[in-house]
Amino acid sequence: MADQQAQTDGDERPVGIPVIRWEEPPEGPVLVLLDQTRLPAEEVELVCTDAPALVEAIRSLAVRGAPLLGIAGAYGVALAAARGFDVLEAAAALEGARPTAVNLSVGVRRAEAAYRTALARSGDETEAAAAALAAARALHREDAEASARMAAHGLALLDELLPGGGHRILTHCNSGSLVSGGEGTAFAVALEAHRAGRLRRLWVDETRPLLQGARLTAYEAARNGMAYTLLTDNAAGSLFAAGEVDAVLIGADRIAADGAVANKVGSYPLAVLARYHHVPFIVVAPVTTVDPDTPDGASIEVEQRPGFEVTEITPPQVAVSGAGGGIAVAPLGTQAYNPAFDVTPPELVTAIVTEAGAASPVTAGALAELCARSRQVTI
Amino acid sequence: MADQQAQTDGDERPVGIPVIRWEEPPEGPVLVLLDQTRLPAEEVELVCTDAPALVEAIRSLAVRGAPLLGIAGAYGVALAAARGFDVLEAAAALEGARPTAVNLSVGVRRAEAAYRTALARSGDETEAAAAALAAARALHREDAEASARMAAHGLALLDELLPGGGHRILTHCNSGSLVSGGEGTAFAVALEAHRAGRLRRLWVDETRPLLQGARLTAYEAARNGMAYTLLTDNAAGSLFAAGEVDAVLIGADRIAADGAVANKVGSYPLAVLARYHHVPFIVVAPVTTVDPDTPDGASIEVEQRPGFEVTEITPPQVAVSGAGGGIAVAPLGTQAYNPAFDVTPPELVTAIVTEAGAASPVTAGALAELCARSRQVTI
Repeated sequence: MADQQAQTDGDERPVGIPVIRWEEPPEGPVLVLLDQTRLPAEEVELVCTDAPALVEAIRSLAVRGAPLLGIAGAYGVALAAARGFDVLEAAAALEGARPTAVNLSVGVRRAEAAYRTALARSGDETEAAAAALAAARALHREDAEASARMAAHGLALLDELLPGGGHRILTHCNSGSLVSGGEGTAFAVALEAHRAGRLRRLWVDETRPLLQGARLTAYEAARNGMAYTLLTDNAAGSLFAAGEVDAVLIGADRIAADGAVANKVGSYPLAVLARYHHVPFIVVAPVTTVDPDTPDGASIEVEQRPGFEVTEITPPQVAVSGAGGGIAVAPLGTQAYNPAFDVTPPELVTAIVTEAGAASPVTAGALAELCARSRQVTI
Repeated sequence: MADQQAQTDGDERPVGIPVIRWEEPPEGPVLVLLDQTRLPAEEVELVCTDAPALVEAIRSLAVRGAPLLGIAGAYGVALAAARGFDVLEAAAALEGARPTAVNLSVGVRRAEAAYRTALARSGDETEAAAAALAAARALHREDAEASARMAAHGLALLDELLPGGGHRILTHCNSGSLVSGGEGTAFAVALEAHRAGRLRRLWVDETRPLLQGARLTAYEAARNGMAYTLLTDNAAGSLFAAGEVDAVLIGADRIAADGAVANKVGSYPLAVLARYHHVPFIVVAPVTTVDPDTPDGASIEVEQRPGFEVTEITPPQVAVSGAGGGIAVAPLGTQAYNPAFDVTPPELVTAIVTEAGAASPVTAGALAELCARSRQVTI
């Protein structure tokens, strides 16, 4: 079960926000999550003592973001094992919590495999539980390391493309520590530039309909003391026209084998604007985001989300209950077009930055090489 | 003073929504406005019995849209005259209600001039009041006629550019009967296509931050039985990429002498997307929108609006009181970039459609010719 802890005072929290952590109080191990549905209004922690509580947290988007879901899933298996619940049942429930997020499944299976292997070898459930926890911790650590490497590769690329420094970076959606075991993907590069004293401005798209930019990226930028400014998605054009954008940095939800990038809806218009204004458009994502089984952009199935996300506005403090539950902003019965993602073709992408290096120009060959290099590192 | 009338049942209102009308009940003349701040939640009429009530209605955006403000201003002068108030004082107050809307000033001055001329000639205040009302009615009628001519010219252009018919039109912000004495500008062209059976789909951008597309254009499209779909501004890119947009139609707030178009923020990104996808980008506006004193786009001063429009969301049912008053969606202290308009250079505009015909390609010479032709018609 999950309990809401008292609100944490902003100043007591370290700048690196712990979005997920394993704790072992005397009454038994727990998984503590930062409840992302309450941001930026409140920083509330959600304490999960079993897998069903974590499943509910995943479904309600209290924990979200592909890499972070993988880590949460692995810890969920470890939690079930440590508390003596049925590990197979817990793993199945966690995998099914959000079936489209492939990372969740990968994380769950990794911890489950570690548990099974240890149990088969030793016959000791305590030892097997420890193995599951070790697997979750390894995944967590690897993801943080991948973030750090992406940040370094990304900043090096920025410095190469923009030798003048004083980078003014436009980003879309949320790709920071709230989606990762480390500091994220695209946001981590901007943060690295900030720490190196070379970030002049982070332009933050609000990212309708769910406002991840306004709610989450602005929150992360503020917590890190970055110079940032929020804008409506459609105001980005004015920034490009005024010459105020030096580079666009975004994350990715899936990258096809040819380099086509599926990311939050609104990414593609930025790619077209960037091309029109001769501004680099850079995608930052771990190698696991590259899907060799998807040949090109046309093969990527884009999730259509419910129309009420557009026809209604749900304040971040209020939990969504059922279809809608927000404040209507359009006439009753209005039909909405609400794709969750869009697809940017490789010819509009200047570079794809991964933990194994950058592909630029973006070609199937360059991506395959990065994937191969990454596997060598892992093995 | 102003009174709210009871809510009108949707089915009793004719399809042509009377956004403004002059009435003469036994207790004296009144100006009746459709309160646009309550749309689409409620259709409430606001009854103004004097100029101060109308000034308040203009300031609160109960009545808005450049051409409509001109008509409202003229009727406001007529109202003051008919009720025996100080006409000069009323005119000055109305002109100052929103100083940036040049049409308001033009409308007020036209009715005031008619009043003065008649008073000087006859010495009879009743006759002068009648002259002011006649001037307001003439402006109202002329604006409606200009709308009808723009609609006809616009549809002819669409049919020429898209000979296959079945037009799928993308529009931004609100440019229908809610901003005009007639059926508007860009929206009027889409409505004409609908009536001719040649509108396959009206794609309606929600138009952040103030959601005029979701609140007002969707309302007008629904009232007219048009096939329409609402989308977030950043989803337009996906529609272009899928080949679902045949033409973009927008209005204009100011057109420079060289054809650069200032319109609601978000118009310029659509122009760039339209160019990238070889889709016509068409601006529809009366000749009075062309400002010969503004040589080019760089000379157009773009109004920066308060940041709280981005950092907060104000539900349409709730009147804005003071700075903000909405629901916070970004961390406290977030700085916002919030230009009200953007500027599209003439090379990205396929055509500018006015009541005097269309300029295509858009050049200073073509625009000057339209303006000259329009003056001949007026004289």
